[in-house]
Amino acid sequence: MERSSFADAECPIARAADVLGDAWTLLILREAMKGATHFSDFAAQLSIAPTTLTRKLQALVAHGLFECVVYQLHPKRERYELTDKALEVLPILMAMGTWGNKWLSPKGDLLTIVDADSGKPMQVAVVDKKTGRELRPGNVALIAGRAARRAIREALKKPLVLGLRKRT
Amino acid sequence: MERSSFADAECPIARAADVLGDAWTLLILREAMKGATHFSDFAAQLSIAPTTLTRKLQALVAHGLFECVVYQLHPKRERYELTDKALEVLPILMAMGTWGNKWLSPKGDLLTIVDADSGKPMQVAVVDKKTGRELRPGNVALIAGRAARRAIREALKKPLVLGLRKRT
Repeated sequence: MERSSFADAECPIARAADVLGDAWTLLILREAMKGATHFSDFAAQLSIAPTTLTRKLQALVAHGLFECVVYQLHPKRERYELTDKALEVLPILMAMGTWGNKWLSPKGDLLTIVDADSGKPMQVAVVDKKTGRELRPGNVALIAGRAARRAIREALKKPLVLGLRKRT
Repeated sequence: MERSSFADAECPIARAADVLGDAWTLLILREAMKGATHFSDFAAQLSIAPTTLTRKLQALVAHGLFECVVYQLHPKRERYELTDKALEVLPILMAMGTWGNKWLSPKGDLLTIVDADSGKPMQVAVVDKKTGRELRPGNVALIAGRAARRAIREALKKPLVLGLRKRT
């Protein structure tokens, strides 16, 4: 069963989850970041059914993350190019990989993220660029944005602090 | 059809995608970050079928992101508490929300992420804490980690730079 779409949700996390909240989609994006451009590139790297790969690639094109470029007509050949929208998913994938190394690989890092210029391991963190402060539970809050509807404005009159542990 | 598991993948992004690559899971985590602890809290905030919610909560417990605490026996009452492993997903959710605001909300921010102490909007970025350098396509690369198998070590003898645009 297909789940409901969150594309019209009043929350940017839900809208992002609508596009990125899918394991195959994340792995296809990872392969594209590594250089895959053709259907056969993705098929060679992922143990994915061809019909599923076709469907996921089509969805990525529909969401504006891939541009499908037909570069030869007879026989037809096409490649998938990452858009700027997709390239800005790279930091999210790196944050996920950092979490995966820490929490899902008890024997240590599977892959290490390094600075492409210096070759030195990066210590990946999500921060506020203005203050350098790392986003952590308890120091981040949400308020209504300027595109928020009235109901959200009312509900979020006071900032909602995230990640506080509760005792009921 | 259930997709194959990536829990044993040799890539930390795949292992993370195995747990987090699911839209409902991301929204359940979001609600937990906002303070939801009970089945009824999640059910009230998400338009999710109860059977699906049950299944996703069980998976979150199985993956060690929620601890299910029985705090009353007659009648049985339980709450779901975020573990440290789950709380460290918060920055990833914030990075996703930032991407969602930018790319999926043409009228502007739906929700604005603010510093819980100062109330000022945060400019969320994924950086290398050591150098302050923002992770972007072309400046990030992967090398084999210390838990990598030999095949990965061989394949990644040279750092693999991510997010380079290719022309075929």
